[in-house]
Amino acid sequence: MDLEQASGVYAIAPTPFADNAAVDYESIDRMMAFYHRSGVTGLTVLGVMGEAPKLEPSESVAVVKRVIAAAERLPVIVGVSAPGFAAMRALAQESMAAGAAGVMIAPPNTLRADESIVGYYRQAVGAIGAEIPFVIQDYPLNFQVVMTPKVIRQIVSENPSCVMLKHEDWPGLEKISALRRFQADGAMRPISILCGNGGLFLDFEMERGADGAMTGYAFPDMLVDVVRLSQSRERAAAHDLFDAHLPLLRYEQQPVIGLAVRKYVLAKRGAIASDTQRAPAAALSATARAEVDFLLKRLARVDARAG
Amino acid sequence: MDLEQASGVYAIAPTPFADNAAVDYESIDRMMAFYHRSGVTGLTVLGVMGEAPKLEPSESVAVVKRVIAAAERLPVIVGVSAPGFAAMRALAQESMAAGAAGVMIAPPNTLRADESIVGYYRQAVGAIGAEIPFVIQDYPLNFQVVMTPKVIRQIVSENPSCVMLKHEDWPGLEKISALRRFQADGAMRPISILCGNGGLFLDFEMERGADGAMTGYAFPDMLVDVVRLSQSRERAAAHDLFDAHLPLLRYEQQPVIGLAVRKYVLAKRGAIASDTQRAPAAALSATARAEVDFLLKRLARVDARAG
Amino acid sequence: MDLEQASGVYAIAPTPFADNAAVDYESIDRMMAFYHRSGVTGLTVLGVMGEAPKLEPSESVAVVKRVIAAAERLPVIVGVSAPGFAAMRALAQESMAAGAAGVMIAPPNTLRADESIVGYYRQAVGAIGAEIPFVIQDYPLNFQVVMTPKVIRQIVSENPSCVMLKHEDWPGLEKISALRRFQADGAMRPISILCGNGGLFLDFEMERGADGAMTGYAFPDMLVDVVRLSQSRERAAAHDLFDAHLPLLRYEQQPVIGLAVRKYVLAKRGAIASDTQRAPAAALSATARAEVDFLLKRLARVDARAG
Amino acid sequence: MDLEQASGVYAIAPTPFADNAAVDYESIDRMMAFYHRSGVTGLTVLGVMGEAPKLEPSESVAVVKRVIAAAERLPVIVGVSAPGFAAMRALAQESMAAGAAGVMIAPPNTLRADESIVGYYRQAVGAIGAEIPFVIQDYPLNFQVVMTPKVIRQIVSENPSCVMLKHEDWPGLEKISALRRFQADGAMRPISILCGNGGLFLDFEMERGADGAMTGYAFPDMLVDVVRLSQSRERAAAHDLFDAHLPLLRYEQQPVIGLAVRKYVLAKRGAIASDTQRAPAAALSATARAEVDFLLKRLARVDARAG
Repeated sequence: MDLEQASGVYAIAPTPFADNAAVDYESIDRMMAFYHRSGVTGLTVLGVMGEAPKLEPSESVAVVKRVIAAAERLPVIVGVSAPGFAAMRALAQESMAAGAAGVMIAPPNTLRADESIVGYYRQAVGAIGAEIPFVIQDYPLNFQVVMTPKVIRQIVSENPSCVMLKHEDWPGLEKISALRRFQADGAMRPISILCGNGGLFLDFEMERGADGAMTGYAFPDMLVDVVRLSQSRERAAAHDLFDAHLPLLRYEQQPVIGLAVRKYVLAKRGAIASDTQRAPAAALSATARAEVDFLLKRLARVDARAG
Repeated sequence: MDLEQASGVYAIAPTPFADNAAVDYESIDRMMAFYHRSGVTGLTVLGVMGEAPKLEPSESVAVVKRVIAAAERLPVIVGVSAPGFAAMRALAQESMAAGAAGVMIAPPNTLRADESIVGYYRQAVGAIGAEIPFVIQDYPLNFQVVMTPKVIRQIVSENPSCVMLKHEDWPGLEKISALRRFQADGAMRPISILCGNGGLFLDFEMERGADGAMTGYAFPDMLVDVVRLSQSRERAAAHDLFDAHLPLLRYEQQPVIGLAVRKYVLAKRGAIASDTQRAPAAALSATARAEVDFLLKRLARVDARAG
Repeated sequence: MDLEQASGVYAIAPTPFADNAAVDYESIDRMMAFYHRSGVTGLTVLGVMGEAPKLEPSESVAVVKRVIAAAERLPVIVGVSAPGFAAMRALAQESMAAGAAGVMIAPPNTLRADESIVGYYRQAVGAIGAEIPFVIQDYPLNFQVVMTPKVIRQIVSENPSCVMLKHEDWPGLEKISALRRFQADGAMRPISILCGNGGLFLDFEMERGADGAMTGYAFPDMLVDVVRLSQSRERAAAHDLFDAHLPLLRYEQQPVIGLAVRKYVLAKRGAIASDTQRAPAAALSATARAEVDFLLKRLARVDARAG
Repeated sequence: MDLEQASGVYAIAPTPFADNAAVDYESIDRMMAFYHRSGVTGLTVLGVMGEAPKLEPSESVAVVKRVIAAAERLPVIVGVSAPGFAAMRALAQESMAAGAAGVMIAPPNTLRADESIVGYYRQAVGAIGAEIPFVIQDYPLNFQVVMTPKVIRQIVSENPSCVMLKHEDWPGLEKISALRRFQADGAMRPISILCGNGGLFLDFEMERGADGAMTGYAFPDMLVDVVRLSQSRERAAAHDLFDAHLPLLRYEQQPVIGLAVRKYVLAKRGAIASDTQRAPAAALSATARAEVDFLLKRLARVDARAG
């Protein structure tokens, strides 16, 4: 499987913890079964949503291995962003040795000038090795690093191992169009573009040329269907389905508490045993949980998945 | 009219320009008629959405006067945020002399420590005068300034002229709850809380204790109805209406291009003659305009307003 | 006088206020006499140090006119940075009409990508007019905007009216070398480079190719001598003089309170009547004033100026 | 040795690398002998200057152990700042087990509100254990996190294991005075205050109540003497010595290239075998090296150490 041709939905998997905050490896298996049933085409672990910095290095590797074992033929991408290249290289190489399909690298939030960003990815590739396929995570709302289409093109051009963009610029629709125009003009080789931002613009991102989604929304089955409907040009059906989920999807996409909402819904859906997060974590208030319950009930009226 | 008891919808009014980028004063009148028909309870001008920094000082005053003249009995709040207190005072005093109900002040994006934020509002009140009612604009996503509920409480407590919070923290539902708990406990005097953030969470913000919305969504009539339905505890109806608008509302709420979308829709709805913005401005691509048209068509199926 | 050939010292002039915070126009004349005696080759007004945002628009123009009148044949540069182009254009055009030699423009602190910075200067020139000579203020420590040498070169290349760089990157010595290499290679037309950063690296900046200083250190006469000694390659003498001032110069260069120190020293030296600042302002504690007095006394032992 | 009573100079030790970028453990011993000769009273390792993020976890522990072994009776503080508490706890506990005297914790650069900062230190202490003495690193220029004196007092008050402040706010003299006033008033228990910022204000910081320096300036012997002279109230002698070093000290204190300058000088002084840094690193140009050589020569005229 070549990641540059990836399409569909790469679910961002959370790291399940037991009530005592130990990693819950059995829930990883249960969660992976849930993702298989949902029809996802790949997995991403140890992303921002995966509470990666809260794991000991040995736990990170163990989680990666358990996910890969349960993923069967599905490709697994491992988030390896780190404040230094030593830790990044160690995790990247252990992950690839364990069978990962590639790694994802976010820029440190201090980068400013274009050439600093391009230089950072050049050095990261130097550190992990040019044979490891990698994904650019472009998430300015969170990282405060702004990559123009030209900067992304330059990273792609300089680094043959760059295979995918996790696109979560906001607003970002024109960026997808610009990158696809570069490709159409022969100015950039094709890469896969999977969209994050909680899926909040997936309906139009697909129409602009994205290949799918890479996000942790707790109904990956819906994302799979929206991508499929959009790819088969059933526009109205794609939007109808997407719009039915939008109230909940918007609620989940809130910064800070988004992960709490997702774990809560995943636990309700039986994908994981507990919605426990490791500290530091923002917990849901009783009111917030009731709001999510209310949204789930409304969703169930129109979407069989949420029943 | 006491602004601390304000409820309903304060529409954030754009500044209409003619095709040649001159202020289009006739469109101000037309736009105000549109807002009257929409049932808004107040107006806010010269906010971020009002392209305020692109106006000459004399134009700012002229726009304020025209809006106030057309507002009849509706209260008008004027955004007076400025890099220095001299300009802030000048605009605040001219606005009040012209009949404004109050002013809105955002913190400069360099403030960090709690006491710096509290001190800034103290100094601003010293500059404009303690008799001018003012609104705190709490918009960390845009201004990078984080105000906790305690900081807001301290500003309210220190400054009797603080009458309202424009709430656009994100996530912010718990903040509304915390502020209303302060009030219930007698720890903070009541102020009005109107919500921004493009209205993206208005459905739940109302249920958490907000008094209404202060935002520029191009269907203020819908916002008015949602606020009314929520206040009369018709919960399902409020959410049904809100959800029908959510796909467009989300599209409008994009940073950078949000104003372009709003002016485009307002022009289509006949509220202003042209969607012209003054430079610097992000324009809508043909694709983006088609996306908005598509959303409007879908909306028209379920909501008579968009017909 | 062509600003692209400017060298020597452009003093950043503070705005003198009387004890009641009114603009002290007589002190402007006294201060200008001081600058004439100091041997500066130009003046800059309404910079960060000039408390520009605390002036009413009419005061800004009045200050500019008074400085220009007293400057006689010395060129005066006016800081016109503003959150919007309307105010920038107004002040730029009034200043030029009053006899200013050019204007200085700092980037807004939200700019990130290279092309956004270049685009900002393109739009600013569009707003003020291509016939007004302008200075780029490159001060990342304060503005959080990072301009690489290539970005500066592109601004210079796109805008024939760009005549000078106020260089205050930190560290910045290699940037001066890089820009001068561009010139030597014919890749960039010559511009004047005057250095800010409180003069903290002026000794080496001159040796890297700078043309002089543009800063508000309260001993502009020393800066003038250091520039002259460095230009005549009296290296040891230049450093000896510079080093004698370094303890005070470093003290003055502190962010936030730097202006208070400068006004205090300028008042002690008789250049202005009072060290009053307009609010908001950081005042010097009694301890801080004693520290400055101590540094002045030590300086007087080695430098006749401070006697 | 109780760290809350620490005074003198805690040298920030770099991590020496061989030309092939391997950790040079023999240079650690040589460097430690140099620090012993210099009269320092403690050491800090794995700080920003220690290239900590470029080390593998196993290397970090090995460096800590080698430094502690060579430190003999001198206390060693270990920087354990990390993006997550798992890594912080692991390194803190391994360091203490190896004989460290305490750990240093910097706030993540995303913290804003006062209570978030206080909460972060509360959680960090929860993670590493309340029995491990820790140092607050207050370095807003680098971390963009602003801690007021009250915030520091609250951290000290909540956490009995907080024993020291590494003070590198800028400007920061008033902060030292404010903290010492808290102590004098009985409003805060005494802690040690050691100053960073490259030592740029050490002369006055001592007079404001600091206990010494914690910085990596390549002449720790000078810092030791300045602290001693200041403590024995030989004010003129302290300033004379400090001022003689100020030109070099200022040069070293440049962000980004400061470490390169320090390693270059330390290698010239024989403290380490090579000035190699691990990537990513800013190297010194030939011109920069010549500038440092020039400053060293000038220093040698007045200070026997640099001979």
